[in-house]
Formats: sequence, structure tokens, C-alpha cells
Amino acid sequence: MSVVVRNIARADAQVIDDLAKCGVATVHEAQGRMGLLASYMRPIYRGAAIGGSAVTILAPPADNWMLHVAIEQLHPGDVMVLATTSPSDAGYFGDLLATSALARGCRGLIIDAGVRDVKDLEKMGFPVWSKAICAQGTIKETLGSVNVPVVCAGANVDPGDIILADDDGVCVVKRAAAADVLKKAQDRLSNEEAKRQRLASGELGLDMYKMRERLAEKGLRYV
Amino acid sequence: MSVVVRNIARADAQVIDDLAKCGVATVHEAQGRMGLLASYMRPIYRGAAIGGSAVTILAPPADNWMLHVAIEQLHPGDVMVLATTSPSDAGYFGDLLATSALARGCRGLIIDAGVRDVKDLEKMGFPVWSKAICAQGTIKETLGSVNVPVVCAGANVDPGDIILADDDGVCVVKRAAAADVLKKAQDRLSNEEAKRQRLASGELGLDMYKMRERLAEKGLRYV
Amino acid sequence: MSVVVRNIARADAQVIDDLAKCGVATVHEAQGRMGLLASYMRPIYRGAAIGGSAVTILAPPADNWMLHVAIEQLHPGDVMVLATTSPSDAGYFGDLLATSALARGCRGLIIDAGVRDVKDLEKMGFPVWSKAICAQGTIKETLGSVNVPVVCAGANVDPGDIILADDDGVCVVKRAAAADVLKKAQDRLSNEEAKRQRLASGELGLDMYKMRERLAEKGLRYV
Amino acid sequence: MSVVVRNIARADAQVIDDLAKCGVATVHEAQGRMGLLASYMRPIYRGAAIGGSAVTILAPPADNWMLHVAIEQLHPGDVMVLATTSPSDAGYFGDLLATSALARGCRGLIIDAGVRDVKDLEKMGFPVWSKAICAQGTIKETLGSVNVPVVCAGANVDPGDIILADDDGVCVVKRAAAADVLKKAQDRLSNEEAKRQRLASGELGLDMYKMRERLAEKGLRYV
Amino acid sequence: MSVVVRNIARADAQVIDDLAKCGVATVHEAQGRMGLLASYMRPIYRGAAIGGSAVTILAPPADNWMLHVAIEQLHPGDVMVLATTSPSDAGYFGDLLATSALARGCRGLIIDAGVRDVKDLEKMGFPVWSKAICAQGTIKETLGSVNVPVVCAGANVDPGDIILADDDGVCVVKRAAAADVLKKAQDRLSNEEAKRQRLASGELGLDMYKMRERLAEKGLRYV
Amino acid sequence: MSVVVRNIARADAQVIDDLAKCGVATVHEAQGRMGLLASYMRPIYRGAAIGGSAVTILAPPADNWMLHVAIEQLHPGDVMVLATTSPSDAGYFGDLLATSALARGCRGLIIDAGVRDVKDLEKMGFPVWSKAICAQGTIKETLGSVNVPVVCAGANVDPGDIILADDDGVCVVKRAAAADVLKKAQDRLSNEEAKRQRLASGELGLDMYKMRERLAEKGLRYV
Repeated sequence: MSVVVRNIARADAQVIDDLAKCGVATVHEAQGRMGLLASYMRPIYRGAAIGGSAVTILAPPADNWMLHVAIEQLHPGDVMVLATTSPSDAGYFGDLLATSALARGCRGLIIDAGVRDVKDLEKMGFPVWSKAICAQGTIKETLGSVNVPVVCAGANVDPGDIILADDDGVCVVKRAAAADVLKKAQDRLSNEEAKRQRLASGELGLDMYKMRERLAEKGLRYV
Repeated sequence: MSVVVRNIARADAQVIDDLAKCGVATVHEAQGRMGLLASYMRPIYRGAAIGGSAVTILAPPADNWMLHVAIEQLHPGDVMVLATTSPSDAGYFGDLLATSALARGCRGLIIDAGVRDVKDLEKMGFPVWSKAICAQGTIKETLGSVNVPVVCAGANVDPGDIILADDDGVCVVKRAAAADVLKKAQDRLSNEEAKRQRLASGELGLDMYKMRERLAEKGLRYV
Repeated sequence: MSVVVRNIARADAQVIDDLAKCGVATVHEAQGRMGLLASYMRPIYRGAAIGGSAVTILAPPADNWMLHVAIEQLHPGDVMVLATTSPSDAGYFGDLLATSALARGCRGLIIDAGVRDVKDLEKMGFPVWSKAICAQGTIKETLGSVNVPVVCAGANVDPGDIILADDDGVCVVKRAAAADVLKKAQDRLSNEEAKRQRLASGELGLDMYKMRERLAEKGLRYV
Repeated sequence: MSVVVRNIARADAQVIDDLAKCGVATVHEAQGRMGLLASYMRPIYRGAAIGGSAVTILAPPADNWMLHVAIEQLHPGDVMVLATTSPSDAGYFGDLLATSALARGCRGLIIDAGVRDVKDLEKMGFPVWSKAICAQGTIKETLGSVNVPVVCAGANVDPGDIILADDDGVCVVKRAAAADVLKKAQDRLSNEEAKRQRLASGELGLDMYKMRERLAEKGLRYV
Repeated sequence: MSVVVRNIARADAQVIDDLAKCGVATVHEAQGRMGLLASYMRPIYRGAAIGGSAVTILAPPADNWMLHVAIEQLHPGDVMVLATTSPSDAGYFGDLLATSALARGCRGLIIDAGVRDVKDLEKMGFPVWSKAICAQGTIKETLGSVNVPVVCAGANVDPGDIILADDDGVCVVKRAAAADVLKKAQDRLSNEEAKRQRLASGELGLDMYKMRERLAEKGLRYV
Repeated sequence: MSVVVRNIARADAQVIDDLAKCGVATVHEAQGRMGLLASYMRPIYRGAAIGGSAVTILAPPADNWMLHVAIEQLHPGDVMVLATTSPSDAGYFGDLLATSALARGCRGLIIDAGVRDVKDLEKMGFPVWSKAICAQGTIKETLGSVNVPVVCAGANVDPGDIILADDDGVCVVKRAAAADVLKKAQDRLSNEEAKRQRLASGELGLDMYKMRERLAEKGLRYV
């Protein structure tokens, strides 16, 4: 049952970095509003925005042994994604593990559980999106798996999927779709800049998006 | 059913601004501990403190069409207050809508749902108090209403009511009561400054508020 | 039923301060993963880290009378710990009470309820760990007790216990165990520094902690 | 501030009873999907279905004094609706109060807080829809009001409004709209019976409601 | 750290049974509104009402090994009380363990976690009050303790304390106070029967409890 | 984006029925503790226990149009599994849809949202496991998909997977693994019956499972 998959395919590094620049909200729209993790996943500090390849971890409740195993599998540019076999908000991850992960080029952690040493993590610049901040320690007794498909905070994550995370939340992009999604996201962004200027000048969305007729058709009345 | 009320009465601008200076906690006390929104309504960034006239929005779950409609109804100094017809934490509002709202003099958004682009909103100085931060997008399919009475986060808000929001939460003051509430709130504040100095010098609340006798009557024992 | 205990034993001041330097996560580990308050207890601002002797308060819902009573019992270096007789997220504590508590040398408040005036509290440097931030005021009608044993956020706190709180949460150390726990915590910390350097240099936890053999025994397979 | 309004208008008794027969889900649809209380309001036992005129109660947290006051205001056929000034799940109501309310012809209680003695209440046939079941007692120290407008579980309730409650939840119908809503609800029901038989015979909703064309227009593809 | 205490003192069997007859709500009142577990603790089926001596269990998350250890320590008339070292809603207990516990005269389980096989448990007549019903299995890897003081659902429970549980919730009575609490509870009950008859005959609580004068003093106005 | 997959593979009918007889808790154990839906998924009435092939539905919040589309795709023995694109507790499903689903041989509904008409559904014998019971109606405005992979209440469900549901919760068995899982589950059950009798006769799990030695090794002390 417990397995570590050593070789996983990753998306093109440039595509990943460009997706990260688009931001979670834009990419999520661009890929048809799919792949968002639940909104209870919050960054431990504001301002970080990352993209990377998912190294997935399936871990027992309050047991962080598999994080040690996962770190060996990290390539520079990876993001760890931890799901649990039963809900837990224990603090699986702290500054020692972050030191080790950083040494291997890891860009951050997405964890459907708890994290601790958050002041140190912020100082080190190691971003984490988690369900909880919790000093509760964990044990190393029970196996899990590394680089198997997981459901993390309601989203399906396969090893090597692209993970994007910023202040708005966390989104997963399927590896095969990455280039296509990037194109759509960049189109949205260039499109948005023009709209922003028109809106800033006072033009109404009702006019810019030509909504008035459809609102009237649906029966909106002004009184 | 779906209606936009174009003309709403607003309170005196000076009264609104003076209420905002008093702060949510003080005004809430001053008006007899009424009108507070539920404590799950949190600011997306710390330090903002606003007052304004409510432009209310009743919107379907995960559908932000009515926000576009509401923006046209904004006057400088208004605050948008969005309630949903069914609970949702989708991200109804982001930087484009904020750009448009700012262009019309809007001071902020109170939303019993989700918001996104929070880093941009902070940069723009557009404050939002919300139930969630969520990258989940919305659609524009179903009508709602603008400037009808709504229940937002447990509080009754009529169009034109005064909305106050700061780091402690969000409070609504009925338009007709505004001047009276302001007077009471200012009395509390001037009263508080004297108390603050006495307490800072080491005087006890037990003595300053003359509580000892009543505590003894109720049966408090010191051992 | 309602009682104020005036004389409580406190731990050695130096031991308390040294425990605070170790941090909540380390101390919690050092004492066998006991004494942590529930993870919903969050600091109202980031960066504070305190240690002190518990002055405990048992208060009715939405009634802060006992806080006034408790402040008289504070010694310099104390931390107030408030539990309620029935759950409440009302704002029991604000800047006036903080002014008074500070004047008596109080280091902070742990409250399984709500707090308000958080912007002022941050400005004053008075840290609070709470279940909620809420402008809702309280009354002064019903007695409670001061310096009796309480269950606060799931943890047993006796008056005079050591309270530690930082960005990771809140932990209670039994007074009798304080010196022993401090020793164990300091051992962990000196131990950690060496590990941190090895991990930073790229050594794996799998090797440093000699985990590979035990993982294989348990049946972990690499594919 | 604290007031008891003695004379409130009530809707026609037959209209109320006929609305109750339609059920909460149907009436809620019939009045345009408005007036539903939050879904956390659950019956303490299954199978009860009531309609009545709202006698509203605004009560402090964990203080049930106003329930005693409200019982005097009950007319046969009334339903008590209790909202709190600050959230509480204490047990405000038990078998003694139910005995008293039953003696005055009360049909049930809607309470955005807790209730106790639930086994006795079921035996007596006194239905309650509540946020919690909780043995926690309450006090009688602080005033509230009776028959003032309240927000209960997210819905606006005025004294004399019609309250409907069954296994699906709780709904409020504005007094002035009662007769009109009843007509719409009864139309829906007669309409539903015919549909039920067609669906039971195997006819598809897709055909019965003629949805296929609109689905195709919107772009649904079958593969 | 991990310990099983074999000999614990228990309260008088008759006192326990008589307390159980009084019910949770009454006993909780009688002992000054203390000792109630959080209201999220719900019975897996309605109608059970038990009293017994607490055999306490401190267990790791999702690990039920200590339940096997605890069963050996059960005396007829005991109730098991399980707290976890970190929150978990896994299903620690099912029909096999219940069979074993029943064979030793155990009266029920109070568990601040999950339980499964609930249909079988109901059929067997083995009542459980739990935080969750959950099919999620547990492991047997990590030690905990049996018959040590625990905090269960917010209440302090010492081994040998009296546990009362019924449809209203769960309450703990300190062993030393049992006889005294019983007397007070029985006084309340006999007192209540007379009140019930007067209320049933239509007498108002306002008159029976002579509340009118105090309400007027506090300022209640009738309009 | 919006698609209906008409032909899906289903598992052997006998295997499905035999799995259902094993029960959710046993099957979940038998397949290595995987595939459980979150414990907030509760049956609308007690005692139902079903097994069937998943017809999956991905639906917008508060929009039940896709349920009408899905019903056409049902084969006798199927179970509908509805996930939403954004969280919702609206009542997507009631007695009319149940009538239609029953006419096509559907065995039940698993819905990560709300359901209504629960009294009628119980009378009809149509079981539902849901996140909420809610009278809130839905609309038919926005497309979703039928028979695509979904994440429902934290579990990955592919069309044609086996769904098992009873009073303990809901579990998904991958179609390819069904026969193998059935064998393991049946082994567990026959195994359990013998254990049950030994435990009922008073034999301790500590002895039957030979735990004493391992407990001692881990360091458990009896005092």
C-alpha cells in the first residue's frame, strides 16, 4: 500500500513560472473554473505567490514521517502537497523541515492540516498554505505514500501537476493542460488591462460589457 | 421581483464621517448594542476604517451580476453591502470591480460572501469586509436586486443606512438615528479619555466605577 | 460559588522568561505534547511572544465584570486567562481594560471568547490570543470567579500555571514541572541548531535521523 | 430600550393553517425564494409541521427571562421566535416553559440558540426548531424585548408574521402577503400532483419541462 | 508518560443511579451549572439515559489501541470517557469493542471523536455520545493512558467521576460532591412537579416566580 | 466544457450487492482505509444501506438543472453522486426528482449539498446522504456535466465506481478493485463473527489479539 514514486513527469519550467505570474484567480478562470482548493486554505503570511510542480504526500493524522521521505524526492522548483488519510490540524511542518526543503529548492508547501514555527517560516521566506496554524507536534509511526494521486482540500492533485498559490488561494493545473491554460490566462490579463483603464476613467461595466439589454430581457426593473 | 431602486435617502455626510471617527465598538455601544454584523466578517487587510451610506445588493449564490448594476447607483461616499439569497463563499469581487467602484467614489464593500485579488485591493486602498477570501469566480446569469432591504451577516440593512467598518467589525446605524447616535458616541469617547488616564495611572476600575459594593451584594467572596 | 482567590503561588520569574524564549512549539514537545490550547486561539497581531503566570478568570457569557475584579489581583509578569461558563464570542476586553492591565504589569490576555479595539491594543503592545475579534459589548451583571481552575480552549489551567503564547498558539506548563520542562526544552533547542545546519547543507532527515531501515521494515516501497 | 408590545396584528387563522399544509419548501418557492431561516435550524424531533403567528423575543446570551415575559403575550395559535443579542447555544427552554406555553395554546418555538429536556418536549408534542440541543442553563438577569422586529437565523421576522416549520426547515411569510402566497403555493401543489404521476410513470423531466432545446442552446454536449 | 491506573475510587452505586434518574439538565443546574461537556457531543440514538463511573482514556488521533487496554479496567457500571491528544473524528469504536465492553458491564461511551457501526450499537443497546459518526478506521500504533485526568469536550474528567448522559447532553459530577449534588437535584425535581401543575393550569411564570416587580425595576415597559 | 457521458462501465451487479451487505465500515477497512467521504455526509433517515454504480453529476451552486439531465442516464441499480463547482447547501433534490429517479431504478443520492422534502423521501424509501437538509430552492440556468470524474465530500468518484452508503457514512470502491475488495471484506466479516463470540464471552481483546507484549515493549506501565 505504502509507496514512493521516484520518477514523475513535470511541466515546462517556463510555463510554470509564467502561470505563477498570472495569479490564481486569473488561471482558475482561464481553465474553466476548475481545480481550486477549498477557501479554508490560507497563507501563513501575506504576499507570497508561487508556482511549482506537485510532489504529493498522503500522510496519516498527526504523523509527519512521510514529509521526511518526500523531501528526498524534491527537485528544484517543486511544491509539496500534503493530504491526510483522516482530518488533522496538527502541526506537521516547521522550521527544520523547511530548512531541509529549501536546501533542495522547494518553493513552498500546501498542506490540508496544520503548520508551526510560522514566524521562522516567514523569516526564511518559505511560504505555506494550510488549514491551520498549530503548535501540536506529530509522530513518525505510520507509513503513507509519496507521489500518488491525492485529494487535497477538495481538489484532485496528481504528482507533477502545476500548483499555483497566492493571497487568493491555491489552484491546481493539470500538467497536460498547462501550456493551453497559460495562453488563455495571458489573454485574459492583456484583455483586463484595457478594461481596467476604461473602468478607472469612469466607464461603467454595464456599458463596457453591454449588459443593459440582457438585464432588461431578464426582467430587471428600475424604480 | 428584481428591482433597482435609484433614489435612496442618505444621511448627512458630516455625521457619517464623524461616526466613522468614533469607531465600530464605540458606536455599537452608543446605540444600545444593536446593529452589529456577525463576527465572521473580517477585513481583508488591517487598518482601514470607513463610514458611508449603504447601497445594498441582494445577489444569487456565486453570481455577481448585480454588482455591476449596483456600481451605477453609487454616489461618492457610499459603501456597497452585499447579501446572498443562499450562502456562498465564492469570490464575487476583485480588482476590476474595485477600479470601477473607486472611480465612482465608493469607500468599500461589505460582503457576506467571498472576495479575491486581495493583494491588489490592498494596494489600491479599497477595503473589504468579507466572510471569505476565495479565488472562485462567479457568473452573470441570474438577477437580484439593488437598494432593497437585506439581512447581511445577521444584521438588517436598509438602503441609505450608515455603515461603519474597522478592524473590530462592521456595524449599521439606522439613518434616522444617526445624529442621536453620534452624540452619544462622542459623549462616550470624551468620557473615555479621562478614564484612560486614571486607569493608566494605576487606579482600579473597581474603584473608578464604584463596583465593590455591588459585587459584595451579589455575594462575591475574597479568600 | 463566586470566589476570588487572592494568594496564588507563581513559578520562578527567570524560569518563566526562559521558557518563553524557547517558544510554544518547542516547550509543547518538551513536556510530552501536553497542555496546548485549541488551535482556534489566534493572536490579534503577529510577532508577540510572551510568558507569564496565569491569573484565571471564569466569566459568564457576554459579561466582563470579572475582568475588572481580576485586574486587582495581577502582579507584574502575569497573564490573564479567561474561560466562559457558556460559549461566547462577545468582545470582553478592549483598550481601557488593557490600559489598566498594563498599569499593573500584565503581559497579555488569553481569552476563549472575543476581544475588541484590536488596532489600539496592537499600538499599545498588549497582545491577546482569542477565539474571535468582535465589537459586541458585554455587561456587568453576573458574578464569576478569579483564580480558580478553569478549562480554557480545551486545556486545564490552574492559577499560577505558566502560560506561553506566540504565533504558533498557546501552551500551559504546570507550575511544579516548570524547571524540568525548561531543561528539556533547552536541550531540544541546542540539539536543533546542529540539525538545522546539517539540513541546510543538504543532508537529508532520512539519513540524519537514520530512518531508512525502519521505513523499510514497515514496508515502504520505492518504485 | 426594553419593551413588550402587547397588541400585534395576526394573519387570518385559516390562511395560516392552509399555508402550514403546503409545507415549508413549497411556500418558500411560492413567495419567490425568500424568508428562509438558515439551514442550521433543525427540529428536535422529526415529523412535526406547524404554522402560527410570530411572537418575537429578543434575548441576551444565556438569559431566558424574556421567555417568561413572552408567554403572557401568547394567543392560541402563536409560535415563539427567539433571537439573541449575541450568539449563544445555551438551553433557554425546557419542559416547564413548554408546559406553560402549551397551556396558552402555543404551537412551537423557533430559537436561534439551544433547547433542553428534548425527550420530554417530544413526549408532550411541543416542537422546537433550534440551533443546538444543550443542557446548559440560563439566568434571569438582563432585559430584552418582546414583539419587536428581530433577525432570527438570518431572516427578518416581524411580530405577527406567519411562521411555518417542518422537517425541511423554517420559513417566514410576511403577514400582508399571506393570502397571496397561499394561493401561489396551492397552485404549485395541484400542479405538482400531475407532474408526480407523469414522472412516476417514467416520463422524463427533460421532456415534461421541455428542457432539451435550451440545454442544447447553452452548449450541452452528449458523448 | 503512558500509564494505566488500575485502582480508582468510585462513587456509591445507588447515588450514581439516582443521579441518572434526575437527568443531565437538572443535575447540571443543581451543581451550579458546572461540568457540562460541549453541546457538539450528541447521542448516536435517542432515548438512552445513563449514569456511571468514569474510566478515562487519553488516546492519540485515529488510534484506538488504548480502548482495548481500558476495557480490562472496566467494572460493572462504568462509563468510558475518551479524549484525544489532538482532534480527530475517526471511528475509534464499533460493535466488536462494544461487545467486549458490554461483557464487562460497561454502560456506555463518551468520546470526543468518532464512532461507527452505529446501527449495530443501537441494536445492542450500547449508547454512545460522540463528536462524529464516521466509518474511518483507526490503528494501534501509539500509546496513550488510561485512568488519568482528561479534558473531554471542554470538561475536566477525573477517573471515578460520575458521568451522566441523556438526550440533552453529557455532564460530569465530581465524586466527592455526588451525594450533595444528588440531594440538590432531587429537591429541584420535587419542586418542579408542583410548578409544572400550576403552569399547566395556566398560571404564569411571571406570577408564580413573582417576577413582575423586578422586571419593572429593571425598566421593562409594556406598550 | 459541459458534457454528458452516456456510456459508462459498471461493476458486476452481484459484486455490488454483496459489497453493500458488508457495510461501509468493513469495506473501507478491507480496501486499506481509502475512499471514505467526509463525515459531514449524513443520511436523511436512519437504517438505509445501499450499494450501486455511480452516475456522477457536477453542478453549479444552487442550480439543479444537471439532476434532470442525469436522471435520463440512470440504469436500474445506479446511485447518483452530486458534487458542486462551489460549495452550496441549497436543496437540490426533493420528492418530484425522487419520483422520477425511482421510476428508473435509482437506489439513492449522495449529494455534497442540500436536500429537501425529507419526510416524503423517507416515506418513499428513497435514501439520501447529504451535507445539509435545506428548503432553499434551486434554479436551472447554468450547465454542469454528467458522468465526469468528480471530487465529492473529499473523495474522488469516477462514473461507474461502486458507491456504498449506510448509517456510518459513504464509501467509494474503484470499479476495477471491486471483486478483490469484496473478497477481503467478506474475509473480515467471517473473521469478525468468531471474534464477536469470544469477546461476548468475556475474553479480552488484549489477549485475543495478543497485544500485551507489544504494549509492554512500547513502554506502557500499569500502576
